[in-house]
Amino acid sequence: MSSRPAGRASTTTPNAVLPGRVLGIDTALRTTGFGIVDCSNRRLRAVDYGVIKTARGERLSECLRRLAGGVRELLDRYAPDAVVIEGAFYCRNVKTAMLLGAARGAVIAVLGEYGTATYEYAPRRVKQAVCGHGNASKDQVALLVARHLVLSLEGVHDDATDALALALCHLQTCMTANGLLVPEVL
Amino acid sequence: MSSRPAGRASTTTPNAVLPGRVLGIDTALRTTGFGIVDCSNRRLRAVDYGVIKTARGERLSECLRRLAGGVRELLDRYAPDAVVIEGAFYCRNVKTAMLLGAARGAVIAVLGEYGTATYEYAPRRVKQAVCGHGNASKDQVALLVARHLVLSLEGVHDDATDALALALCHLQTCMTANGLLVPEVL
Repeated sequence: MSSRPAGRASTTTPNAVLPGRVLGIDTALRTTGFGIVDCSNRRLRAVDYGVIKTARGERLSECLRRLAGGVRELLDRYAPDAVVIEGAFYCRNVKTAMLLGAARGAVIAVLGEYGTATYEYAPRRVKQAVCGHGNASKDQVALLVARHLVLSLEGVHDDATDALALALCHLQTCMTANGLLVPEVL
Repeated sequence: MSSRPAGRASTTTPNAVLPGRVLGIDTALRTTGFGIVDCSNRRLRAVDYGVIKTARGERLSECLRRLAGGVRELLDRYAPDAVVIEGAFYCRNVKTAMLLGAARGAVIAVLGEYGTATYEYAPRRVKQAVCGHGNASKDQVALLVARHLVLSLEGVHDDATDALALALCHLQTCMTANGLLVPEVL
């Protein structure tokens, strides 16, 4: 993770505060992506991105401990004004839903403890915000995230790219229609 | 919650350590039951039991924050040797599974942080251990938990009774067949 940059500010719009710094988290049990985007004078800049990982054989309690600890570390280091996670997606299997739910729970409990405003966006809405349509492929999302943030994402983990997309989606939603479409805080 | 009693010890059996103090947690998003049972010279005693509650209208992040904080408080106060949660149950709805998973995740992340040995038992197995058969009703479970612990559970929240049953189930499993049937740590 890179060191913390200076100079960011929140701008108030009639209906929503445009956050100066947003942390996107693409939550999963083994590999959770994160991406931090700063917004200054409506210009966007990626501050840091990567993944919180646990090995395949690790116990569930260890996976969740690392995940919660990793998020805590990101909040301490970057003090984001808002956090965005993925929500309301299709999950066919109840067992998978329970495990993914556990990863989300470990993360949201930490966010609740820090009191950072947390928002949830459906994957379709993230793709729409970043790519202009809700059926974009992973490659299209990566391409557009790279363009929006003027950086190369070659070789960067998909989950980190998706986390940056979550942060971008929230910032664009705040900047559009006076922030009228920003969802309720989680 | 009552104050902490003195005098408990762990006894080693060939295949499992018989814990001196077990915390059972019946996890849910709004009302989570807890029950602490001490075992000394194979005699069982309820130390404390109750529920961690959040109001209906509370945000998800606040529910999970309180739940994680409540479990942390119990671990600090009672320092159990083992923790038992309910696992592998039938859940028809994916959305419900996700929410229940979130509550479990918030709890398990804290247990992982404290490094307390955590075990999971299916509801059927808990009923079998406490009542002798896996199809026992809530009332039968309450009756048998009260008998095992020689106390009255009249007016006590179902979730607290279920949490005591979880703790009892683990202690009985440790005492039976030299602890051969104790599940893997979570």
